[in-house]
Amino acid sequence: MQQFQYYTPTKVVFGKDTENQVGKLVKEQKAAKVLIHYGGGSVKRSGLLDRVEASLQAEGIPYVTLGGAVPNPRLSKVYEGIALGKQEGVDFILAVGGGSAIDSAKGIAYGICYEGDVWDFYLKKCLPQKSLPLGVVLTLAATGSEMSDSSVITKEEGWLKRSAKSDLGRPRFAIMNPELTYTLPEYQTMSGCVDIMMHTMERYFSHERDTELVDAMAEGLLRTMMHNAAILLEDPRNYEARSEVMWAGSLSHNGLTGCGRKGDWACHQLEHELGGMFDVAHGAGLSAVWGSWARYVYETDVERFAQFAVRVMGVEENPQDLKATALGGIQALEEFFRSIHMPVSISELGVELTEEQIRELAYKCSFMDTRTIGGFQALNRQDMENIYRKAR
Amino acid sequence: MQQFQYYTPTKVVFGKDTENQVGKLVKEQKAAKVLIHYGGGSVKRSGLLDRVEASLQAEGIPYVTLGGAVPNPRLSKVYEGIALGKQEGVDFILAVGGGSAIDSAKGIAYGICYEGDVWDFYLKKCLPQKSLPLGVVLTLAATGSEMSDSSVITKEEGWLKRSAKSDLGRPRFAIMNPELTYTLPEYQTMSGCVDIMMHTMERYFSHERDTELVDAMAEGLLRTMMHNAAILLEDPRNYEARSEVMWAGSLSHNGLTGCGRKGDWACHQLEHELGGMFDVAHGAGLSAVWGSWARYVYETDVERFAQFAVRVMGVEENPQDLKATALGGIQALEEFFRSIHMPVSISELGVELTEEQIRELAYKCSFMDTRTIGGFQALNRQDMENIYRKAR
Repeated sequence: MQQFQYYTPTKVVFGKDTENQVGKLVKEQKAAKVLIHYGGGSVKRSGLLDRVEASLQAEGIPYVTLGGAVPNPRLSKVYEGIALGKQEGVDFILAVGGGSAIDSAKGIAYGICYEGDVWDFYLKKCLPQKSLPLGVVLTLAATGSEMSDSSVITKEEGWLKRSAKSDLGRPRFAIMNPELTYTLPEYQTMSGCVDIMMHTMERYFSHERDTELVDAMAEGLLRTMMHNAAILLEDPRNYEARSEVMWAGSLSHNGLTGCGRKGDWACHQLEHELGGMFDVAHGAGLSAVWGSWARYVYETDVERFAQFAVRVMGVEENPQDLKATALGGIQALEEFFRSIHMPVSISELGVELTEEQIRELAYKCSFMDTRTIGGFQALNRQDMENIYRKAR
Repeated sequence: MQQFQYYTPTKVVFGKDTENQVGKLVKEQKAAKVLIHYGGGSVKRSGLLDRVEASLQAEGIPYVTLGGAVPNPRLSKVYEGIALGKQEGVDFILAVGGGSAIDSAKGIAYGICYEGDVWDFYLKKCLPQKSLPLGVVLTLAATGSEMSDSSVITKEEGWLKRSAKSDLGRPRFAIMNPELTYTLPEYQTMSGCVDIMMHTMERYFSHERDTELVDAMAEGLLRTMMHNAAILLEDPRNYEARSEVMWAGSLSHNGLTGCGRKGDWACHQLEHELGGMFDVAHGAGLSAVWGSWARYVYETDVERFAQFAVRVMGVEENPQDLKATALGGIQALEEFFRSIHMPVSISELGVELTEEQIRELAYKCSFMDTRTIGGFQALNRQDMENIYRKAR
């Protein structure tokens, strides 16, 4: 087990009707004025925003609102929030929505406390030194941003999708009512399920062997996700399945399933470029590239892929042919993705990549040929092109 | 899944040599003066205390020290720490040791901020409203107090062992270097392993069925513990096994394995009276009573015990006779306890209970016949007597 830090200060309040506690939780944080940041109209139409506002009003907490965070949330909206927040003198950001609203809120929280351009943090020019505190009312189980240190923003100029990481961005509280996810379209639900699984898988594919407890937890999480995603396909208003998926979403990206080892994260990097250029749903983008990545790299540690195949995918181990076991696991996960109507190729995303686009994606993903990606197997610009090509 | 709150703000810094970061971590907490609280002479003899002091000195942080926290830590020592801390004007408590030093430090931290008698919190007369912040350098994997909200103190007058719970008692940071546990005597190591397992089992035995993810994590943790306790029996300086046990110790009692269900906790209550009256090692006391408790209550939910037997203990399921499956699991865990040289009866603790002592234990455990214990099956004073008698 390698050295690690584990820091998850977010207070989780989980269960039915918990959104009505938001005023009390904001008050505990001693907030004087709140910026409520949300996405599209669904939180308005569903009445959730009204309930959140009523809860703040009941505690006498003043607030302003800013909607319009979109999937692959935009830098321009972050700038708008920073300007509004400064003008209104807010000292707390409350995100109501999924990962897009939360990630956008994190950008706003950093930017209000920073003299320079908030994009600096996403370009990794420097780290946030200060942030406004954040809270979350979660409406989509997917990105794990409600407990994570991560914010992913897309700059429209050049369609660059980049992440900033800081413990300052970990929300103070996260309200999670699984019922709020009942009405999500199937595609969004399943895309979220893939994202959740990938947050654990990116951490799981590692050459570190001595992570027995963390492996067992990660494998249990992945099996739980597959079981419950299948239930939600048939019964999207199943409270228990929504609960399992929602809690797995947070635990999958708060650091727990990665303690003691360095993860891979290549698929996330490959997807970020697809998301930036073609605005695809993040989870769908991940499932479109994962199989091609896996077949490209599995020989670097066949044993690890075989363990995944046996313990997670239920493939029978073939001790004479571990490669076959490993490949069986890759195929089984692709079949699972298909079964929940997720793409296993980029063309199934509705994107027909040209050779020129492949070169552009790899160029961007390699930060103009200045970096490799992947902790499990380092991938250079040429490798990235190869994987995009295989995933086409 | 039932409603739950999950709050684990402790920053964990895990790995070799991490104790040398203690000065930096205390400084991050903006402490002006620290009370270092430790147990017996081992942290002195090993040189750990010197290293901790040097790390504080390097950051220019003044401190005073107080040793003498013993297993089943005493209220008189807590009073002593409160007086010293007030006199010296400390604003941060640093526990260096295992659960005894940490629990005692929590009592001191509450008491310094309280006008009344700190024992009020342990009698549940009221809840702590304020506390000094705490940090931990852990030297024993067992109680999970390094991340938990719990402090257990024994009042010498009447030998009452009682717990106080508050999120204010969750340490700000916990430094965990598995190497610091290399030199523990076997009995203490194994007693710690039982305690760790019991923290998850107390949460696991519940009638709530819809906790699929949390079950999988709990079961993985228990299997990991059994595997690694057996390794440590042969090879106490095995870094990886020490690491698995240490990390399992924290995750077993920070709330993770109990999310979404009410636990049982009867064995802990039964043991607290034994520990208070006979000063036995906590984990050993737990293993001495568990089997008798389990056979007394298993019929209230045979399915749950059968699931435990199959998934944790590797017992083959007998669908025609779930009772036999359940009993097989209980027997298998007792055999495991024996295999790591832990007692499975109270006489193996070196305590030969008289009938009068049994009545006294049950009378105290039932808070003078005013409460039942056990979330899985409620146990009254008569039940407690029966279990102590069976466990004799």
